[in-house]
Amino acid sequence: MGNKDTVIVKKFGGTSVRTIDHIKAVAKRIIATKETHKNIIVVVSAMGDTTDTLVQLTKQIASLPDRREYDALLSTGETVSAALMAMTLIEMGHPAISLTGPQAGVITEKQHSKAKILDVKTKRIEKELAKGKIVIITGFQGINQSNDVTTIGRGGSDTSAVVLAASLESTECEIYTDVDGIYTTDPRKVKSAQKLKEVSYDEMLELASLGAKVLHPRSVECAKENNIILHVRSSFESTEGTRVKEVSPMEVNKPVTGITMSTDEIIISVLNTPDHPGSAGILFSTLGAQGVNVDMIIQNTEQDTTNNISFSIHQEDLKTAIKVTTQVVQEIGAKQVIVKEDIAKISIVGVGMISKPGVAAKMFKTLGDAGINILRITTSEIKVSCAISQEDAQKALELLHHTFQLDQ
Amino acid sequence: MGNKDTVIVKKFGGTSVRTIDHIKAVAKRIIATKETHKNIIVVVSAMGDTTDTLVQLTKQIASLPDRREYDALLSTGETVSAALMAMTLIEMGHPAISLTGPQAGVITEKQHSKAKILDVKTKRIEKELAKGKIVIITGFQGINQSNDVTTIGRGGSDTSAVVLAASLESTECEIYTDVDGIYTTDPRKVKSAQKLKEVSYDEMLELASLGAKVLHPRSVECAKENNIILHVRSSFESTEGTRVKEVSPMEVNKPVTGITMSTDEIIISVLNTPDHPGSAGILFSTLGAQGVNVDMIIQNTEQDTTNNISFSIHQEDLKTAIKVTTQVVQEIGAKQVIVKEDIAKISIVGVGMISKPGVAAKMFKTLGDAGINILRITTSEIKVSCAISQEDAQKALELLHHTFQLDQ
Repeated sequence: MGNKDTVIVKKFGGTSVRTIDHIKAVAKRIIATKETHKNIIVVVSAMGDTTDTLVQLTKQIASLPDRREYDALLSTGETVSAALMAMTLIEMGHPAISLTGPQAGVITEKQHSKAKILDVKTKRIEKELAKGKIVIITGFQGINQSNDVTTIGRGGSDTSAVVLAASLESTECEIYTDVDGIYTTDPRKVKSAQKLKEVSYDEMLELASLGAKVLHPRSVECAKENNIILHVRSSFESTEGTRVKEVSPMEVNKPVTGITMSTDEIIISVLNTPDHPGSAGILFSTLGAQGVNVDMIIQNTEQDTTNNISFSIHQEDLKTAIKVTTQVVQEIGAKQVIVKEDIAKISIVGVGMISKPGVAAKMFKTLGDAGINILRITTSEIKVSCAISQEDAQKALELLHHTFQLDQ
Repeated sequence: MGNKDTVIVKKFGGTSVRTIDHIKAVAKRIIATKETHKNIIVVVSAMGDTTDTLVQLTKQIASLPDRREYDALLSTGETVSAALMAMTLIEMGHPAISLTGPQAGVITEKQHSKAKILDVKTKRIEKELAKGKIVIITGFQGINQSNDVTTIGRGGSDTSAVVLAASLESTECEIYTDVDGIYTTDPRKVKSAQKLKEVSYDEMLELASLGAKVLHPRSVECAKENNIILHVRSSFESTEGTRVKEVSPMEVNKPVTGITMSTDEIIISVLNTPDHPGSAGILFSTLGAQGVNVDMIIQNTEQDTTNNISFSIHQEDLKTAIKVTTQVVQEIGAKQVIVKEDIAKISIVGVGMISKPGVAAKMFKTLGDAGINILRITTSEIKVSCAISQEDAQKALELLHHTFQLDQ
């Protein structure tokens, strides 16, 4: 942008603006940073459960409502909170203006409900910043080439904030939320969990997709692409949070940054699948088409001509998964389906493990020494996941958290 | 417009779309007219008391909220109902699309909260009609030259509908509401009240401003200017309603078309005002500035040098009016303020009275014969209003309704 003063982008989620009192508290925080930052962009989500309430209305009309109208409807949630936020700042004596996605020049694909942001025409934003106004922008929404309002998918306000930061050549984007940062593991489960000062984009992606619901994965990817630091922090406390940024594995002391655990997983095994090409393809494309999220796929050749395929799913998909799998099993001529419930998946994540060998082995040994049976293992460059029995989960989490020195 | 097929504009108020069930009922009515009308425009208000709920939110922030943000906020109410209506029609198998004021090309003045509509750029509307779509347009809102959303004042959806009808060269605009037409008087007060087949624009204006809250006066004026017939009818019954249209006084049989009554009026009299120029001006401009609605002003010169000024107001303005009047009386050197409460104003309205003399006299005689004291009289070309004691109001209404043959 023409204006060389740094722009700071602050994103506030739905819980941070769920009542007028919350909006007022947030407004005071925004004003406090006006002393150090001349150019402030605030991205807001819809108030509290507004979006869910609107979705409930559509369910009274159609199971699959028209996507264009769905977007037109849902986008009003952010318009409301942005206008109320601007109104509050103005009432507190600070010039401010709310801009909808279309007004802010957020251009998206034509597709509705999960449109990608293609570009931001920042002219209007810059004009309002130049007037000294705090610019409040609705998250989650944009406009397509047909002049229709689009939305960019649930949790998309994080992505809106990062895209705006990138377009305005900002280097940092603050994500205000109801937790005060990213922890080594869930502090409700392990008391000694420590707040991380920083995590890498890749670690955050693994942590996010593993269930740490603080940041939407798309926003992390987008921040990584544009090298924008995400500062995850509390809406209502002024302490520093966690910075998500580029971290070289060589700079990291500890091999593991965080541990995540997901429970209520199910392992489904299909035994004695005839080994001709496409069997696995048919199974997983059918499961995908039925909306079943499949994780940790393992295929073993037992004999020369048959395979065992097993995969894990979440409890909520069990019914659909069993129905689909049983059908496909008959089609492809497999012999047996075995379902194993009450599984937990525990994952250690850390860029440090790239430069420090033996991390996975240490994990397996820790679990083995404690008599915890490992049912399944999957690994990526910066992550090792083990499926274990749910009854061992809490013990495993505490042991690994201590073993990898995350409580220090 | 390029398309020569007639366009029909249907406007549905907030009570007609207050739940999804209401929206579905309205959608069925719209679809029913699809057989006779190729091009259908539907203008909707916000659902039920949505607008009031939004206004309540602003009151938690500011007594006088920023007007631009207020408009951005309030306009979301109509966006919601328009999207839900389009979604419902599509689900019922009829192509439809919702357009916001900005998308529909409704261009207004720059001013917020009570902007006048300057123009409608109908290109997008025509494009969607040409595709065979039922076009749902948000009432009450438009866009100004700064690309900001504006609203055109409370009750403005009626006006939106008429302006759209005029822009699309339509000759009739249907106003669907929770009553089934305009009556000779309030049917809750007089059982023999008759539904009118038609009333003139001027009569409707007198009736509207006198408290028949069915149509917003601005919409009637706008319909008159553009010679568009307003058909006021029930949202949920298919009977014909009342057509508001140009009616020549010469075509009218009865001198009086309708009778309205407003109660809880107050008469304030200022006695012995020194007769120098500007006294009345000071009084009424001060009352106006304080938001007091003044009606039926009468000024009598009692002696050579002093005046008596009296005027009526509504009960709700009493406190402010007395405060203002007492102050001004001291300033201008008047002697005394007299307040008379529990007043009713009864008005006969009819274009027919232009060509039929003696109508006012007949009114006065009817009231006089019944022993009802007339405290005050004001008249216009098509209206005679009398202030009477509130305890005589019901009797006066029934008598006049019968005298002017409105029960036939």
